[in-house]
Amino acid sequence: MIAIISGTNRKGSLTLQIAQIYQQLVESHGTPTQILDLSQLPHDFAFSALYENGNRNAAFTAFHQQAADAEKLVFIIPEYNGSFPGVLKTFLDGMPYPSPWKNRKAALVGISSGPQGGAPALSHFTDILHYLGIHVLAHRVKMPFIEKNMVENRIQNENYLRQLHNQVKSLLSF
Amino acid sequence: MIAIISGTNRKGSLTLQIAQIYQQLVESHGTPTQILDLSQLPHDFAFSALYENGNRNAAFTAFHQQAADAEKLVFIIPEYNGSFPGVLKTFLDGMPYPSPWKNRKAALVGISSGPQGGAPALSHFTDILHYLGIHVLAHRVKMPFIEKNMVENRIQNENYLRQLHNQVKSLLSF
Amino acid sequence: MIAIISGTNRKGSLTLQIAQIYQQLVESHGTPTQILDLSQLPHDFAFSALYENGNRNAAFTAFHQQAADAEKLVFIIPEYNGSFPGVLKTFLDGMPYPSPWKNRKAALVGISSGPQGGAPALSHFTDILHYLGIHVLAHRVKMPFIEKNMVENRIQNENYLRQLHNQVKSLLSF
Amino acid sequence: MIAIISGTNRKGSLTLQIAQIYQQLVESHGTPTQILDLSQLPHDFAFSALYENGNRNAAFTAFHQQAADAEKLVFIIPEYNGSFPGVLKTFLDGMPYPSPWKNRKAALVGISSGPQGGAPALSHFTDILHYLGIHVLAHRVKMPFIEKNMVENRIQNENYLRQLHNQVKSLLSF
Repeated sequence: MIAIISGTNRKGSLTLQIAQIYQQLVESHGTPTQILDLSQLPHDFAFSALYENGNRNAAFTAFHQQAADAEKLVFIIPEYNGSFPGVLKTFLDGMPYPSPWKNRKAALVGISSGPQGGAPALSHFTDILHYLGIHVLAHRVKMPFIEKNMVENRIQNENYLRQLHNQVKSLLSF
Repeated sequence: MIAIISGTNRKGSLTLQIAQIYQQLVESHGTPTQILDLSQLPHDFAFSALYENGNRNAAFTAFHQQAADAEKLVFIIPEYNGSFPGVLKTFLDGMPYPSPWKNRKAALVGISSGPQGGAPALSHFTDILHYLGIHVLAHRVKMPFIEKNMVENRIQNENYLRQLHNQVKSLLSF
Repeated sequence: MIAIISGTNRKGSLTLQIAQIYQQLVESHGTPTQILDLSQLPHDFAFSALYENGNRNAAFTAFHQQAADAEKLVFIIPEYNGSFPGVLKTFLDGMPYPSPWKNRKAALVGISSGPQGGAPALSHFTDILHYLGIHVLAHRVKMPFIEKNMVENRIQNENYLRQLHNQVKSLLSF
Repeated sequence: MIAIISGTNRKGSLTLQIAQIYQQLVESHGTPTQILDLSQLPHDFAFSALYENGNRNAAFTAFHQQAADAEKLVFIIPEYNGSFPGVLKTFLDGMPYPSPWKNRKAALVGISSGPQGGAPALSHFTDILHYLGIHVLAHRVKMPFIEKNMVENRIQNENYLRQLHNQVKSLLSF
């Protein structure tokens, strides 16, 4: 099973749409998936589920345990202020330590309204995943100017689609 | 005025103690300060104050406006999972855009229980501040093994204290 | 005086052309400049001027001493293999330690044939300059697809030109 | 076969000693290795083997072709000026493009005289390897204060040795 983390809590995000597109790509290879949509996190989890409250917020624990059995992880990461969303890192800060995902493998997808496609976010996030003992696929997909490249929940850019296809294939054999 | 951001919402943190030590150092030069303690943020701010809710959470707006007049900024950043705390980035994700702090100047202090002193956190955070148009002082202070180097709210390590003194002087003339 | 470092030893590079354009922009403000063109380095400097041979290669020493009096530095950095050129870092590895440029101020310009405009190179290079005690201007100029945006030694992209103008003004008052 | 790159051209380096220790660890598992010692590079390779001179320096080509058949790569990286040695990146800048090592797997070891153990170097280098399509093992070994932890070509620090052992095992099954 592959867990796909939609890396923002913004409602109605393109990030979630891309997580769903990614899900279809993976499932077309016959591999089951599970989407973790960070917009479904308990609203106060940064206070009620971290540090001395680790494991005390049942809704938060249930949320991340959906992906406890994932062999591989995909993070869809929108670029916010030149890096990943704070809420995505807070989600990791609330996970048990050592990470239940140690030695799992991950693929990263960056999206942005601007020209960078989340490149700095993916670089920073790789450091974090390595710290947690999670291997990261070399092929990072970056999709800049994402609003201009989507129409009605569909990616219109052939290059983006080809990169996603290739990344899925690489991830399945990683 | 210099704003000192205590970069975690963990209760009773060493981060806040170090923010208070930093405050004394700056004020000993006759410069006023203001501490922003992220543990005082509204507990649901990641949902109620970001994105389409920007500026709609009066408590959050009041929180960051305490530092609206700061000419310079100091970020005390504990290392969590190989980078800065998610809640610190979420705080920035909730600030107005473009940043009210554009062209301000900032100094970074990293602390950690382990050997890195927050070095990767400070590197990632520099990218973010540059994105926001905030200049970063070259001298980054890193304080590894922080628990072993504090006794009753005081830093016992002469090298750490000297570095903080030097950074304060550099920041005041930056 | 402002030193402008053309960050590659590739002959006939666009990097050097952009260094010359930058020179004109700075000098139009009445500030003198000096270009350091890394293609003029002694060909064996990585072996004859580093480590135990520090300061023993007169041609290398003369090269970097051209910029000894620079108050500010500009690095024009082409993206090679996802970062800065190795030769640019080797040049720094051959400089005296501690850096003669400690506490100087620097501006970074990235160029690339591809879409990133040298963004990761500028991020990595900022870490290095901070390590050396050199302050980095927040405003990093990135010029992707550089070949398509130059005609006969001139930049044709209005946005790139505006960014360079603004960076020069910021650097002069930094 | 695993290629071990000794990441500096400094003569008599601890880096090379550690490459040799790593070699013994890998070979004790029955896997053949090849050390690439950058101190053996042609002294003018940064000028005679790069860019328009790609593939024209027979000695340089012979050097990197020693590792053409490597299935996996190990980089021993000393920290110079807050990052990897320039000469190591220059070596990569002289390799054919696209990289002959695409889809190979790599492990990173950082060493330093100071407290960081090459951490920023390994972070920057991971970005470069990912750009080249090389997968990087999550477990990065960092060995700070290396001079104090070696006696007569032997590592005396039990923690460092344990980390190297564990990394070798992870790499062999990566």
